[in-house]
Amino acid sequence: MIHGVLFDLEGVLYVGGYPLPGAREALLSLRAAGIPMRFITNSTRMPRGAIVNRLARMGLEVPPQHLFTPVVAARNYLIARKLTPHLLVHPNIQGEFADLLGPPPDAVLLGDAGPAFSYDALNQCFRLLLDGLPLLAMGSNRYFRDESGLNLDIGPFMVALEYAAELEAVVLGKPAVEFFLAAVGSLGLPPQDVVMIGDDAEMDVRGALAAGLRAALVRTGKYRPGDETKVESQGGRVFDDLDAVVDYIL
Amino acid sequence: MIHGVLFDLEGVLYVGGYPLPGAREALLSLRAAGIPMRFITNSTRMPRGAIVNRLARMGLEVPPQHLFTPVVAARNYLIARKLTPHLLVHPNIQGEFADLLGPPPDAVLLGDAGPAFSYDALNQCFRLLLDGLPLLAMGSNRYFRDESGLNLDIGPFMVALEYAAELEAVVLGKPAVEFFLAAVGSLGLPPQDVVMIGDDAEMDVRGALAAGLRAALVRTGKYRPGDETKVESQGGRVFDDLDAVVDYIL
Repeated sequence: MIHGVLFDLEGVLYVGGYPLPGAREALLSLRAAGIPMRFITNSTRMPRGAIVNRLARMGLEVPPQHLFTPVVAARNYLIARKLTPHLLVHPNIQGEFADLLGPPPDAVLLGDAGPAFSYDALNQCFRLLLDGLPLLAMGSNRYFRDESGLNLDIGPFMVALEYAAELEAVVLGKPAVEFFLAAVGSLGLPPQDVVMIGDDAEMDVRGALAAGLRAALVRTGKYRPGDETKVESQGGRVFDDLDAVVDYIL
Repeated sequence: MIHGVLFDLEGVLYVGGYPLPGAREALLSLRAAGIPMRFITNSTRMPRGAIVNRLARMGLEVPPQHLFTPVVAARNYLIARKLTPHLLVHPNIQGEFADLLGPPPDAVLLGDAGPAFSYDALNQCFRLLLDGLPLLAMGSNRYFRDESGLNLDIGPFMVALEYAAELEAVVLGKPAVEFFLAAVGSLGLPPQDVVMIGDDAEMDVRGALAAGLRAALVRTGKYRPGDETKVESQGGRVFDDLDAVVDYIL
């Protein structure tokens, strides 16, 4: 039996500024059935408040404390270890770390910086890594889909710096086990009673399975034919859309 | 006995615009001893003619036909396979491929583009790779040293695209075996009679050893303490500078 649900956001509940068909109905049906939900995204292009507002404008009501993002995970990580970050993140979320800044930095924090991934900015991170700073990555996603098509996400730039400086990043978003377990823990349920629903075969589905959850891939968002082979052998299920997943859960 | 020598350029014969101590003397001594030399660089920020002129200004005489660069290797590769490249290369070498351009492209060709490695340019390559185009990389170097310190080379951006599009690049410069053998072949010597001298433990030394050559690492240029461990276990030798290597050869 499934007693709780984790939703990925972009590509599952919406694409660009538009909700996907069945998204609102899925949340209403699960709520009516008394199944608690959490929302777990690797998006690091907006602060949590802006994501919640954006969802609301699409008719998707999500309480801020039910939304798990790598920005929150990264803040907790930095504060617990008293680390001052050097940021290579999207301009929209720089303010989320303003209270933690101050020279000299002792960790490099990478987000999905988008066009801010310039050669000079990457080179600056590289030199800090050579000086011995650790690399913290808010996700390791390969790409995401928006209105214009598929786009490079944080992952390619994370592996670029890993390769250059010959080290391994600490990943603070999906597919890190701790990230899934923080969301599951807030439900007060054991992982095996919770299903993760996502459009990313690796980050969402394989990540959740590795953390002991169940997992479902939807054929929306960044889904590409052939992704089934990445999840079915691991015990993940594949559905055409949210309607089909909700039918399965209920 | 060593009967021929391959030299890496930047970090071995010069750094920035200045010859390293002993560089001119090394070329003169080997020439006087009748030991033929070739020059093999992964630099893709200048056309071959410009590299030769730059060497000449430093008092280092190198005939153009003795200089092996990935630009030449890439041209040969594209022409042999009748491929039209999409270029993400340094502006200085775009002209070297002008006669091979024309829509639609059927291969993505990556060089050390430096500041031209923008998010938009990388994203454009990524989308072409998803369409099925192969990725050709003129080298896979992690970093290089110039006047300002260590800088990201082509390799990090190659692995970024490999990770994003889930494919493997064809590497056309060092450490590709064919690239070393083209230079060795022009000497008319068997690989085991030729020594490669470089400052890059992986590209120069391990690459040459894998191609059957001998190899020497010099502690100049991008050398970093600890690089010895990457080469000595593979049969590479380590020298403080060119003087020491030339003494060993002669």
